[in-house]
Amino acid sequence: MTEENRQWRLRQRPRGPLAPDVFEWVTEPTQAPGDGEVRVRVLELSLDPANRVWISGPSYRPAVEIGAVMDGFAIGEVVESRSDAVPVGTLVSGDLGWQDYAIRSAKAVRPLPGGTERPLSHHLGVLGVTGLTAYFGLLAIGKPKPEETVLVSGAAGATGSVVVQIAKMWGCKVVGIAGSAAKCEWLTGTLKLDAAIDYRAQDVAEALGATCPEGVDVYFDNVGGSILQTALHAMREQGRVVCCGAVSGYDGATPPPGPRGVPGLLIARRLTMRGFIVTDFAPRFRDGVQALAKWIDSGHVKVQEDRIDGLERAPEGLVGLLAGDNIGKRYVHVADR
Amino acid sequence: MTEENRQWRLRQRPRGPLAPDVFEWVTEPTQAPGDGEVRVRVLELSLDPANRVWISGPSYRPAVEIGAVMDGFAIGEVVESRSDAVPVGTLVSGDLGWQDYAIRSAKAVRPLPGGTERPLSHHLGVLGVTGLTAYFGLLAIGKPKPEETVLVSGAAGATGSVVVQIAKMWGCKVVGIAGSAAKCEWLTGTLKLDAAIDYRAQDVAEALGATCPEGVDVYFDNVGGSILQTALHAMREQGRVVCCGAVSGYDGATPPPGPRGVPGLLIARRLTMRGFIVTDFAPRFRDGVQALAKWIDSGHVKVQEDRIDGLERAPEGLVGLLAGDNIGKRYVHVADR
Repeated sequence: MTEENRQWRLRQRPRGPLAPDVFEWVTEPTQAPGDGEVRVRVLELSLDPANRVWISGPSYRPAVEIGAVMDGFAIGEVVESRSDAVPVGTLVSGDLGWQDYAIRSAKAVRPLPGGTERPLSHHLGVLGVTGLTAYFGLLAIGKPKPEETVLVSGAAGATGSVVVQIAKMWGCKVVGIAGSAAKCEWLTGTLKLDAAIDYRAQDVAEALGATCPEGVDVYFDNVGGSILQTALHAMREQGRVVCCGAVSGYDGATPPPGPRGVPGLLIARRLTMRGFIVTDFAPRFRDGVQALAKWIDSGHVKVQEDRIDGLERAPEGLVGLLAGDNIGKRYVHVADR
Repeated sequence: MTEENRQWRLRQRPRGPLAPDVFEWVTEPTQAPGDGEVRVRVLELSLDPANRVWISGPSYRPAVEIGAVMDGFAIGEVVESRSDAVPVGTLVSGDLGWQDYAIRSAKAVRPLPGGTERPLSHHLGVLGVTGLTAYFGLLAIGKPKPEETVLVSGAAGATGSVVVQIAKMWGCKVVGIAGSAAKCEWLTGTLKLDAAIDYRAQDVAEALGATCPEGVDVYFDNVGGSILQTALHAMREQGRVVCCGAVSGYDGATPPPGPRGVPGLLIARRLTMRGFIVTDFAPRFRDGVQALAKWIDSGHVKVQEDRIDGLERAPEGLVGLLAGDNIGKRYVHVADR
């Protein structure tokens, strides 16, 4: 019996703000796995700002090709296997793409940790790429010390909302920047941040002066652009800037200019800016997942998710993500198990 | 007997390219030191691109005030002392300023290492701030490994010319960027660099592609601006950018925009940019001076100096330094011992 495989394929490279019509909805029969391969049914599909980068052109990974199924990190279940290592019924994560069924080498998927009773979506978010990005970016790159001031942009987003919670647990003063009053209320009310700045309603430089008069020790940057520039000028000597994302620039037609103050301010204040990709820390993922799981169980890290139902809504979900519609981890629920 | 004290005082803050007339030539009687102070006769006066920063406004140090004697690092001899710790005849270094005689707290000057038979100017340059900047910036911030590719801008300047020599000694492939054919010839001919790029005559991006096809592991940046931007795009994954100076921007009226690629390229290629000031490493200066002295004696580091005679020529000397007239360490010989 051949099942239908619904897919979103890349129709064209976006120029300027993303519109859903750069993707094309295609239905084709599912393929059978070859030797050493598995067929995986996609259950939960992650939406990430980085998806926008992948379709613009080559970056830290090759660009998604025109006509190809859109790439996307996902959780799925093996429904057909030609690999002894990954039998039918295994729950796996990997880049399965925007589709119902993915054929992948058994080596290209990772079985989820056994005996898990957590919602599958947690493995996309706080226990997946998002949480690990927060964990390693903050602790291994930002290296905050207790009492230091940590500033986080995109603070209500998937990664930022985990960063701020780890930083609070670390004993830091934590200030978040987000794009609405509701997000700011959630940051200070639910996540207990010391302060939140609504960059759409407030002058960020002024607000930083008021909330961080002592300066910022660690700035976890998810957005780049003008907020990065403003934050740089609020840094304290020996401060660290964690370059995690630059979502403010992803949706533009041309790369934005760099922030004023580079390199002059880096020298005068002895700042370090360091970029990273979470996979740099792959050998230590297990440690990260264990720590995050413990903090979820202890209540130090609250899981906040933003679920979209139906594969057909993936493009609009990504457009909305880039516009900042979400609080917490946005993902697409594709199918029940 | 009262001696004359010739001085250069700051008449006004420069706006745009430095002209000598921002300084005013004043002659006044020398003062007597107070309790705990010494009177130092200035012998050799350092000229540094950072001097330009100090007169623009506050930076990593307070700005030189209008009407005040111009600050400048120098070597001098104590000619009158009211401190037992620093007797008459002691050779000292410190911020003595652009003048014949400086009154300073004995704590504000540092006696030169005893038994020195080296030219005094070496203590301003390769064994002074300049050499230490090269030493710590390259080794403690850039952390090159043998076989890696090290790119240095301002490579024929006081700091750059020491950086390139240490990097060669370290077993690195070394490429220098400088502003004339003569400098480039000196870099490849005398200092034995693997390649040199004349940024005034060549397309730097193209030349980097030709000379560093494998990419740059460590970029030691003395200039900032467009060369920094171009170099960023030539960096290899996990590369380090040592932010030491930004001389291309010092002489402008307004701060230049930052380099494109910040932060996007930092993320995609996992780059680190780190700024520093040599005094951050003050506790380790002794080690640095010892290492540099050894390398001078072994011939691994050649000392290249550019001497200007007469305090009266200090302003034009600084203007020329900012224009890149010098090869090696520029200083003003103020008086014989």
